[in-house]
Amino acid sequence: MPKIDLDSIEPTNRTGYPPPYDRDVAGRWYRRLGPPSGLTDMGVSHVTLEPGAWSSQRHWHDGIDEFVVMLDGEAVLVEESGETVLRPGDCAAFPKDVPNGHHLINRSDAPCRFLALDVQKGEGDCHYPDADLHYAVQGERYTRKDGTPY
Amino acid sequence: MPKIDLDSIEPTNRTGYPPPYDRDVAGRWYRRLGPPSGLTDMGVSHVTLEPGAWSSQRHWHDGIDEFVVMLDGEAVLVEESGETVLRPGDCAAFPKDVPNGHHLINRSDAPCRFLALDVQKGEGDCHYPDADLHYAVQGERYTRKDGTPY
Repeated sequence: MPKIDLDSIEPTNRTGYPPPYDRDVAGRWYRRLGPPSGLTDMGVSHVTLEPGAWSSQRHWHDGIDEFVVMLDGEAVLVEESGETVLRPGDCAAFPKDVPNGHHLINRSDAPCRFLALDVQKGEGDCHYPDADLHYAVQGERYTRKDGTPY
Repeated sequence: MPKIDLDSIEPTNRTGYPPPYDRDVAGRWYRRLGPPSGLTDMGVSHVTLEPGAWSSQRHWHDGIDEFVVMLDGEAVLVEESGETVLRPGDCAAFPKDVPNGHHLINRSDAPCRFLALDVQKGEGDCHYPDADLHYAVQGERYTRKDGTPY
């Protein structure tokens, strides 16, 4: 059945971020839609941000195109050129290899929901302009920017 | 600017389908969001279906994961296992190489809008269970099922 039964997928707020970077995403609840629906080349996360929650640390990817579309509520997109409110139906794209760190913050007093999609082929490292974090695809782990482990 | 200015992108109802298969999609208006926003590995179409319009002929792809999310209004998803109404926030996934021909039909009396996303890597042929159509990635063209040109 191609239609996805969202209620059948347990949301999680799991994160691989080391402290203190995990706190900002504690109110980020997501369902990964790709694996239960058989997608292997496309990643799809159905995300709810509680008030105050961040979608991630501000970041950009080598090798991964990303796309978001707001479904309900509103969030603030923060990136190098400033801040933009995203409302239902609004879309934003983050081409691979473009060093424009981005994330969404829910500054409203109600939950918001969005979809985040990416291409699961050709993943490279992930870069975090505001946090002492680096994600190395080789080794699949987070380190400090100087490469030392947490 | 990562947020996409939808109004700046001219919608088109262009199709490569030969007659008579072009008629069903005459009321399908779409904006391709990938190229103007710099995405190269992910395809994103922002689609409006007028009442009666089809999203495509019923089809499935070799090599291409596809995903749709309804934004406004409603459409009927038609595929091998039957028909399912999709409403705002509903999602459906079509993994590559799975021979489940699918399309959306707007049987309501108002326009509906949805996003259709795919991965622009590894494209293979496209198969049409209901129409005498075949899309060959080699040659980038539509033929009859027996390979003869229109």
